[in-house]
Amino acid sequence: MSGIPSKDEIISAHERIKNHIHRTPVLTSKQLNEIYGCSLYFKCENMQKVGAFKFRGAANSVLSLDDSELTKGVATHSSGNHAAALALAAKSANVKAYIVMPRTAPSIKKKAVEGYGAEIIYCEPTLQAREETLNEVIAETGAAFIHPYNNYAVIAGQSTAAKEIYEVIPDLDYLITPVGGGGLLSGSSLSTKYFSPGTKVIGAEPEGADDAYRSFRDAKIYPSINPDTICDGLLTSLCEKTFEIITRNVSEIITVDDSNIIAAMRNIWERMKIIVEPSAAVTLAVIGNNKEKFAGKKAALILSGGNVDLDNLPWSKLER
Amino acid sequence: MSGIPSKDEIISAHERIKNHIHRTPVLTSKQLNEIYGCSLYFKCENMQKVGAFKFRGAANSVLSLDDSELTKGVATHSSGNHAAALALAAKSANVKAYIVMPRTAPSIKKKAVEGYGAEIIYCEPTLQAREETLNEVIAETGAAFIHPYNNYAVIAGQSTAAKEIYEVIPDLDYLITPVGGGGLLSGSSLSTKYFSPGTKVIGAEPEGADDAYRSFRDAKIYPSINPDTICDGLLTSLCEKTFEIITRNVSEIITVDDSNIIAAMRNIWERMKIIVEPSAAVTLAVIGNNKEKFAGKKAALILSGGNVDLDNLPWSKLER
Repeated sequence: MSGIPSKDEIISAHERIKNHIHRTPVLTSKQLNEIYGCSLYFKCENMQKVGAFKFRGAANSVLSLDDSELTKGVATHSSGNHAAALALAAKSANVKAYIVMPRTAPSIKKKAVEGYGAEIIYCEPTLQAREETLNEVIAETGAAFIHPYNNYAVIAGQSTAAKEIYEVIPDLDYLITPVGGGGLLSGSSLSTKYFSPGTKVIGAEPEGADDAYRSFRDAKIYPSINPDTICDGLLTSLCEKTFEIITRNVSEIITVDDSNIIAAMRNIWERMKIIVEPSAAVTLAVIGNNKEKFAGKKAALILSGGNVDLDNLPWSKLER
Repeated sequence: MSGIPSKDEIISAHERIKNHIHRTPVLTSKQLNEIYGCSLYFKCENMQKVGAFKFRGAANSVLSLDDSELTKGVATHSSGNHAAALALAAKSANVKAYIVMPRTAPSIKKKAVEGYGAEIIYCEPTLQAREETLNEVIAETGAAFIHPYNNYAVIAGQSTAAKEIYEVIPDLDYLITPVGGGGLLSGSSLSTKYFSPGTKVIGAEPEGADDAYRSFRDAKIYPSINPDTICDGLLTSLCEKTFEIITRNVSEIITVDDSNIIAAMRNIWERMKIIVEPSAAVTLAVIGNNKEKFAGKKAALILSGGNVDLDNLPWSKLER
């Protein structure tokens, strides 16, 4: 895929991966609709394979490689869900996967990657260390680098979650997705343009990692420097490919603080009885902080993942 | 309803409540199928209103009352989910509800009952105290007593969860439900007899509260004396009505210990990304402890509820 994914390319991507991914449910909750004063549709990518939407992009990128690329394997660096996603996508295609991970990644995510048979190469938790280590791996193995989001095949894969929403829920006023590196947000904005052009797309971002908000506002990419948020999936910064798509197709990016994210996460756990990670709950926190804006509206939220350490839940750290 | 619910009475009960209850999803998990070596179908009553199947029976019993009964209200004693269920069912019908609860009930369940506008009357945590307090309330108010399970309208309501399973999953070898007082198990066994007679029904019970196991084995009702289990929904004993139905229609009752239940619960949380209470996970623990019996079989499990105290999860108490 040589440019911004077209409508046909997204349709093809969906065809390519649809027997490999779960078609995740779109759930509703009368209780949450009452609490938040709008009609909410939750796309449960927490129930996707590897527990995150990332499997869509990873599957599409692996299944798009040619035979000679496949023999050399795939490689990436990731703080978590993309790593597990690429590892599983590679395993399913019988391809070797090399994953560069920061030593500080949550143990649940390390275990998942190992469980899928990938080779983990640990590095220091900085973007520079990740990139250097990855370059060494690629030089040694010839593996194809699958960037977590600066990759059109990945973006096309991520776009399919929103496409599935539009296949069952018409006339949405808003689609809200978390934004970290922008793969999900950019892909979702493309699907919206092609399949539900009347819907506005909003990126939801933690205040403590608001580089996408600032980048969008100032029309230039700011790096994510020392992000401070519980949302471990949203620490990365936008990249060239995602930034361009987001700039053209997203209405706005809204930030919320961690205490609001944790409260929204707990509301989802308690009322919907489903497990989502903080990075997913940022979407509902945006609704909660902007009730007037969303009053009476129809909004879909992509619950991007459900990988949390059950021994270390965020509310156990809060003052009570 | 004057006797054991007939097929037509169960169909009528389902018609009566179907616009009031959630038709909960039946979920599957490839990961859990691999781990347990069989095909599992999870009926998600944790996503039912009030977070438990109990709403089905409560709704059917309230909606079956005549006008003069409705003016006086309803009353019950319950350690939790039935209380919330009756409170909400009464509220929806604009009827007064009086709930006798042990002081020791989990705070999440007390709050839910209060939130539905019911009047709570606290008592000591013994069956005797509950019954005495309830009798006082009924004498004062004339409210109709809705027993949590020794009531055919309640049993008919609970039977509809299994009926919904059979409407979408044919040829099940087994249906497994938790057993406490036996409302869900007896109702499920009736639906099985009427709608899927080739399916065997198994009751799943914690070892520390194995009165139903012993009652079934010895063909006489044993009271539940000093039960010791994490399954706070399964502390009660069988009663005349549930025992008779269970004796006739259930294949067996299998017990499992709390450590297996907690492990099964955690497997459900981690792999399926849904929240279930220990009393629901006892069903999967039965599969895990009897892998040979269930190998290659098709089994539906009723995940009976999802009301847990998120500040006090069972694995935080285990040695690691």
